Amino acid sequence: MSKVRLETFSDAIFAIAITLLVLNIAQPSNFHDLGRQLANRLPDFAAYIVSFAVIGIMWLNHHSLFVHFAKSDRVLVLTNLGLMLTIAFLPYPTGVFGRALVQGSGARVAAVFYSSTMAVNAYMWAAMWLYASTGRRLLVADFPESERLVSTVLFTVGTVAYTLAVGVAFVSPVASLALQGAFALYYALDPLSRRAARAAEPVGHQHS
Amino acid sequence: MSKVRLETFSDAIFAIAITLLVLNIAQPSNFHDLGRQLANRLPDFAAYIVSFAVIGIMWLNHHSLFVHFAKSDRVLVLTNLGLMLTIAFLPYPTGVFGRALVQGSGARVAAVFYSSTMAVNAYMWAAMWLYASTGRRLLVADFPESERLVSTVLFTVGTVAYTLAVGVAFVSPVASLALQGAFALYYALDPLSRRAARAAEPVGHQHS
Amino acid sequence: MSKVRLETFSDAIFAIAITLLVLNIAQPSNFHDLGRQLANRLPDFAAYIVSFAVIGIMWLNHHSLFVHFAKSDRVLVLTNLGLMLTIAFLPYPTGVFGRALVQGSGARVAAVFYSSTMAVNAYMWAAMWLYASTGRRLLVADFPESERLVSTVLFTVGTVAYTLAVGVAFVSPVASLALQGAFALYYALDPLSRRAARAAEPVGHQHS
Amino acid sequence: MSKVRLETFSDAIFAIAITLLVLNIAQPSNFHDLGRQLANRLPDFAAYIVSFAVIGIMWLNHHSLFVHFAKSDRVLVLTNLGLMLTIAFLPYPTGVFGRALVQGSGARVAAVFYSSTMAVNAYMWAAMWLYASTGRRLLVADFPESERLVSTVLFTVGTVAYTLAVGVAFVSPVASLALQGAFALYYALDPLSRRAARAAEPVGHQHS
Repeated sequence: MSKVRLETFSDAIFAIAITLLVLNIAQPSNFHDLGRQLANRLPDFAAYIVSFAVIGIMWLNHHSLFVHFAKSDRVLVLTNLGLMLTIAFLPYPTGVFGRALVQGSGARVAAVFYSSTMAVNAYMWAAMWLYASTGRRLLVADFPESERLVSTVLFTVGTVAYTLAVGVAFVSPVASLALQGAFALYYALDPLSRRAARAAEPVGHQHS
Repeated sequence: MSKVRLETFSDAIFAIAITLLVLNIAQPSNFHDLGRQLANRLPDFAAYIVSFAVIGIMWLNHHSLFVHFAKSDRVLVLTNLGLMLTIAFLPYPTGVFGRALVQGSGARVAAVFYSSTMAVNAYMWAAMWLYASTGRRLLVADFPESERLVSTVLFTVGTVAYTLAVGVAFVSPVASLALQGAFALYYALDPLSRRAARAAEPVGHQHS
Repeated sequence: MSKVRLETFSDAIFAIAITLLVLNIAQPSNFHDLGRQLANRLPDFAAYIVSFAVIGIMWLNHHSLFVHFAKSDRVLVLTNLGLMLTIAFLPYPTGVFGRALVQGSGARVAAVFYSSTMAVNAYMWAAMWLYASTGRRLLVADFPESERLVSTVLFTVGTVAYTLAVGVAFVSPVASLALQGAFALYYALDPLSRRAARAAEPVGHQHS
Repeated sequence: MSKVRLETFSDAIFAIAITLLVLNIAQPSNFHDLGRQLANRLPDFAAYIVSFAVIGIMWLNHHSLFVHFAKSDRVLVLTNLGLMLTIAFLPYPTGVFGRALVQGSGARVAAVFYSSTMAVNAYMWAAMWLYASTGRRLLVADFPESERLVSTVLFTVGTVAYTLAVGVAFVSPVASLALQGAFALYYALDPLSRRAARAAEPVGHQHS
């Protein structure tokens, strides 16, 4: 299994999952009062936008991460499959969360469910990184050793942060949705690969 | 993130969104009177065809535009993600619009909702162009300076036109659907990239 | 728009449409009597299999046809988009047809609806061929002139056959489903590209 | 039809089918008691995970198998289409199985239905292998003859095992779901291509 094929398959799942999200926004049931029905769905749209950003930015960072892998092996493929499972599953808790916010009932449970899915997702990312980076197993030769440690710390911090976010969901569903959006924004800045790219530059490693 | 990968991901979202549209046409509820049920769905089919044309032609023009970009950067990727959000979302307002026309109720609200989605989409296109073209940030070297100004004017006119179309939706839902179809037809002629291609030809730039 | 990109986009739509078909098989409503419910769905499964074969074989022949095109142009892209519309739409009449057969009501209307979609699809294929082949507009240089005429005749016969199949649907829904399956089988043998490939062989044209 | 294009199309169907699985998990109907509703759906989630693993690992092994094919022909394309049918269909029996387990009714029928789909899938794999390997029809030159016999035995054993699994489904639905998960795990180890790869190594055949 070449790295390219693994990435192409992952990209396809990202693209499909991000586009399927829209199917989980419930169609209005009553068209006589459509304006209010659509206005009531604002939390549904908010959940949609957060999940869209989450998946889109994960796609981006999946690529940023794989740039640092020199090759693929069977364990990486299976770990990546586990990661894909949590991403392909995301439309379901998104739909549950959006609907619960719209109905004003069950929002706490839905927020915990959504945040837990994101936490499992964070563990999968960390597992993939740990597998690939331990002993520099799959890393490209010019990946700086100092960055390896920083990345491991950042991935670990990520799992802690997403686990704590499950706690926030218990307290306030809306705050937890905002927090997930903030996390996505943070990862949009992609500190990991930026640092690594900068560190790698002196040795002439360039991504166009 | 290479430009090729960005385009491949965008193409996948275009292909998925355009194919998912069909899932938003409601299945008949009563098979005893199927002929009439299908005939009643004509506005649903019309909304389907307009949205199919809209997404198909955007796919085409996305490519025409990216031909003029020499490279990609993180801001372009994120702006493009915003654009993709409005396209991946389109099946939802299409479904709402089609159903409202079929039920003969809420059509005005549905038309405004649909047209507003298209207006946000137009802003995203303009934002992407402005980011990429300002100071020729991402443009290929042989993109003519005169065309840059013309394109900026045309993208701006586009945002104005789509904003005005929201006004039309307030007046007549059916006229607004026809207007969106007419806009799609106009962009099918692709004035932007045609002009640019023609202008670029003397310097030997050829797209096969 | 390169020919490769056009084919990749078309392939994606074929793959998505063929995989979406499964979503149109209605889930059982009653699990107490699941065995009989699934047995009752046999016509639904039959419609699924026929449409799967139809789309799969069209994908195959789309490729066989494009092998003979030397290049792409805007009209081909738009004609191909029209063709894709009829293919992406197919899950809907398939779902209607399957349900009508299961419910034993509206099957005639559903069969006419399905067959009409297939007829429009046949016109799209013929239109694409006529555009590309007239005056050898887009054909590769070594495509034999004699085959051009034979292909035009076969595409025309195809439109007539699919139009007549709409008539069969008026008479017998089940026979019309069988007929569509038989048509798919016929195209699985791909007489067009086989003849052309054979004819082209002496001049050393080889598809691996 | 090149082998690459056939694999790309198959990969797309794998990616779409694996991502569509999520649409078959029923949304909660009652949000007042959401916690219990989600807990009740555990069998639904289990069926989801098993089917995700099944499709993901088939994707992996599809690639492992095609590495050994030197070329493609029309019969391989059509056999592969039959294989894809059973994979694209899998979301449906998965949904039926999950729901039946949740409702505690019809689970036996659903398990038989699911296992039968998997058995047909196993026959398709065996048919594809037999067609490609008989007389070394499509095999690469360096595929060891001894491995060809071993592979044929293993594919045959596979069909027997999946057929027996239908019998297990008659006895215990839950055991049959676990068995399908165990089969997936077994194939995750990919004995076929591992042996072949090892055997081929002396002659310098390397998959990166």
